[in-house]
Amino acid sequence: MESARLLVDLLGKDRASVTELLEARCRATPDAPFVRHQSGRWTYGGAWEEMRRFAGFLSVHVEPRPRVAMYLSKRPEALWAWFGTTLAGGIHVALNRAHKGELLADMARRSKAKLLVTEESAWASLPDPARCGFSRVLFVDAAPRNAHVQGVELLDWDAVRRAPPGAIVPSAPSDTASLLYTSGTTGRSKAVLVPHNMYARGGANVAAAFEFKPKDVIHDWAPLSHIGGQMHMTLAAVSSGACLAQYDTFSRTRFWDQIAESRATAFFGFSNVLSLLMMAPEGPADRRHTLRVGLVAHMQEKAQLAFEARFGVKLWDTYGMSEGEPMTLPAQGVPPGCSGAPGPDFELAIADENDNPLPAGEVGRIVMRPKVADVMMKAYEDDDDATLDAWRNLWFHTQDLGRLDERGFLWYVDRLKHSIRRAGENISSAEVERALKAHPDVHDCAVVGVPDPLTVEAVKAVVVPRAGASLDAPSLHAYAAREMARFMVPRYIEIRAVLPYTDVGKVKRDELHAPGPGLWDAEEPGRDRL
Amino acid sequence: MESARLLVDLLGKDRASVTELLEARCRATPDAPFVRHQSGRWTYGGAWEEMRRFAGFLSVHVEPRPRVAMYLSKRPEALWAWFGTTLAGGIHVALNRAHKGELLADMARRSKAKLLVTEESAWASLPDPARCGFSRVLFVDAAPRNAHVQGVELLDWDAVRRAPPGAIVPSAPSDTASLLYTSGTTGRSKAVLVPHNMYARGGANVAAAFEFKPKDVIHDWAPLSHIGGQMHMTLAAVSSGACLAQYDTFSRTRFWDQIAESRATAFFGFSNVLSLLMMAPEGPADRRHTLRVGLVAHMQEKAQLAFEARFGVKLWDTYGMSEGEPMTLPAQGVPPGCSGAPGPDFELAIADENDNPLPAGEVGRIVMRPKVADVMMKAYEDDDDATLDAWRNLWFHTQDLGRLDERGFLWYVDRLKHSIRRAGENISSAEVERALKAHPDVHDCAVVGVPDPLTVEAVKAVVVPRAGASLDAPSLHAYAAREMARFMVPRYIEIRAVLPYTDVGKVKRDELHAPGPGLWDAEEPGRDRL
Repeated sequence: MESARLLVDLLGKDRASVTELLEARCRATPDAPFVRHQSGRWTYGGAWEEMRRFAGFLSVHVEPRPRVAMYLSKRPEALWAWFGTTLAGGIHVALNRAHKGELLADMARRSKAKLLVTEESAWASLPDPARCGFSRVLFVDAAPRNAHVQGVELLDWDAVRRAPPGAIVPSAPSDTASLLYTSGTTGRSKAVLVPHNMYARGGANVAAAFEFKPKDVIHDWAPLSHIGGQMHMTLAAVSSGACLAQYDTFSRTRFWDQIAESRATAFFGFSNVLSLLMMAPEGPADRRHTLRVGLVAHMQEKAQLAFEARFGVKLWDTYGMSEGEPMTLPAQGVPPGCSGAPGPDFELAIADENDNPLPAGEVGRIVMRPKVADVMMKAYEDDDDATLDAWRNLWFHTQDLGRLDERGFLWYVDRLKHSIRRAGENISSAEVERALKAHPDVHDCAVVGVPDPLTVEAVKAVVVPRAGASLDAPSLHAYAAREMARFMVPRYIEIRAVLPYTDVGKVKRDELHAPGPGLWDAEEPGRDRL
Repeated sequence: MESARLLVDLLGKDRASVTELLEARCRATPDAPFVRHQSGRWTYGGAWEEMRRFAGFLSVHVEPRPRVAMYLSKRPEALWAWFGTTLAGGIHVALNRAHKGELLADMARRSKAKLLVTEESAWASLPDPARCGFSRVLFVDAAPRNAHVQGVELLDWDAVRRAPPGAIVPSAPSDTASLLYTSGTTGRSKAVLVPHNMYARGGANVAAAFEFKPKDVIHDWAPLSHIGGQMHMTLAAVSSGACLAQYDTFSRTRFWDQIAESRATAFFGFSNVLSLLMMAPEGPADRRHTLRVGLVAHMQEKAQLAFEARFGVKLWDTYGMSEGEPMTLPAQGVPPGCSGAPGPDFELAIADENDNPLPAGEVGRIVMRPKVADVMMKAYEDDDDATLDAWRNLWFHTQDLGRLDERGFLWYVDRLKHSIRRAGENISSAEVERALKAHPDVHDCAVVGVPDPLTVEAVKAVVVPRAGASLDAPSLHAYAAREMARFMVPRYIEIRAVLPYTDVGKVKRDELHAPGPGLWDAEEPGRDRL
């Protein structure tokens, strides 16, 4: 795929700051719709005024080139604050609205931001702002009644409305645009410094691969603290001149109404979104919609094909992470269940345990290198050890297992740390899950390793039955024994009503290790051994 | 070029520790000559006993896996100490015997080595060993008479002779084998951590490219503190089973006698070695020798062709540095004056000022990536900032300017920091030097930038006339004005009898800035302007 073509079309060059991209887009198509939300609609020209005003607010209230932390739901003000910070030459610190307590306070302190932008409804989950290092808190709506914190100035959105349009402070394509925290389901999250050019080129490459056009409307509930919400939605829209239809969360019951009201042509989700939408009874309305394409992460072939066949929407996976996006993109010939072709700015490889590249077809750690400058993170801030470890042998090391096929397409296999070590065998939790999900009565499941004195780890499956199905552990165990290698068969099976998911659709595996009420053990004394 | 073939032949695998390589070679050809020196001759089998004994000495006197600093001239004991440390699972700290005083003490302290291996003649240039952090000093000959240092144990080589053969402590290919200091003509030198596999594969690749065979004898005066002496000489010999003829320095007057006595087939040098050897009057003896090939760094086409034509010896340049070797090697079709084809383990590119790759033919910074694991430095020790800066955008950044031609061959242009900024022009000192050296009366010259209030920098040429030639600054200046762009013409010309060189043949440019007695200024008041 030709790279950064939309940037060249818009700016006459193939690397850029987000500042340059925003200004060029808003000047090129000021009357085109950019954002629609329950609170209003904005053209690119109108949005430009909002961003300029936020930059003006910053020029009055904070230091030059500030770091501005945002703890917000998906809403237009989140965009004005992000891009207003960008126009002011500052750094957007993207805090996940799902975090709270000490974890949130720790991220806030590490970000070194003095200004927090948040919303009234967030007040209850916020730790003491002073303890977070904030000296000012700006509410995009109204400051909560009676809110008062010693030494912290609380402001409401009127302070922004009153601000004059701010001067535009240029940034270089290699400058840091955002600081975001890796979602890491285990371990302290790392602060990723994302350069301007990564957003500018990445957004343009996503838009080109998904063929976004000015007439496209993107159904967008992706959190703006997540690289997908930032790049695959927002910057892909900006670089192509498309419109974002913002919703604060994914709703199974309201999804099709939202598509109808916004006339959305594209949507975004994680693989659980597909199974949620498939739960609705089939009907003639399944094909009466405007959607043409979906960006869905980590789909399995079966789920992808069923959804595409039923709703007539083409789905594509993309692979990447805060440290580098988009590592894969749609391309001619990419089969269902595949993560896509390498993005034009990246070289992907599969490394063995010694860090040497493996041939096509073999499974190993996914590693990558940028083909052009400033399309990957600049570093993990204040964590040189982690950066150097991630960069050893001049490869960026993901934490994922995958393989490249003969055509160079990437197949995601599993998280590295989800591999289970049982008596000398390395078991991929994803492979066990795939086999169990093929059982007609299994709706969802997740497989983890639990400590075992004899075998290092034992395999545990947590299973959600299909609605209306009766599923018991012994019969599922017998099924597993028929369908998979003996060492992969789960010793423990736990039936649950629902699996715990993060707000970006990843199973919270850490919560699956502790025995639940329905735990069944195949090796319980008195029970026949396999 | 096929990579690491000699390793596969010897060990059945393509990555290895130096320990494995040494053991395999010494077992495979124990009776083949390995080292000849004025003090004796050693076969691989005999050398194995010496190394084992040094490892035994370490097991008695120092901690397991020690760091052992070496401050030695080129001599067999330097090899026994280096490889004995390797067999003991330790780290060889290579101190340049040319250093002294506080600079040496600083390197010694940073190395964290507790044991220094040195020689009697070095005692005078050594700072107080205790101040260097050493608790033991071992002399490979005898401890100097009356030497005594409070708190430091002084040992002589008898302590090694008495030691039992040491146990072999295995190392992984990715483990650090040596710590060496970048020679950096300016700035504090950095401590490069070189992994075992870089030596093992690098030595095998050099040997294969130069077609070293067991019958080859390599005339070797390359310091063992330098990656070239370590890899291109020593490990290339070990991997191919060739013999090293050790000499403690390069001697213009004794060179051909040494070639005759050792029956050397290969030699090593920097480009100044060629001009030194060309100074001898031509004669029929020029072709009566055993040399077939020379490894000579940074040759210019004219010098290479003249030497090859006169002596009938094929010369090849190789490019690389402590952080990664060999980045280039000889190959079919590489023209004179060229640095060679990319080594099989490296991807080379030329980067523009934004770090983006440039097309063939364009001049920019030489950058590189390893194609396999553990063939580049692990890091600069205790200097994460320098390591991260060198690795930005997942390229290793050299400090050199170069270009790749259409066939992918590398042409070295200049040191990045040797480019001179004069009134908005970037001038390559190497280009000015090349033009001046083409003058029939110029034997050697070096060009530097000196501060100038009007033009930022002014060009200064320090020139050594050809023996017997009469050369004056005004006529050379007039010549320069005819031969090069006006902005490149040196304002200052200084005639000297000799240029200052480092022990590895690089001009000490820092010593050229201060005005010498013969300084001539083209813009001296009263003198006609160009």
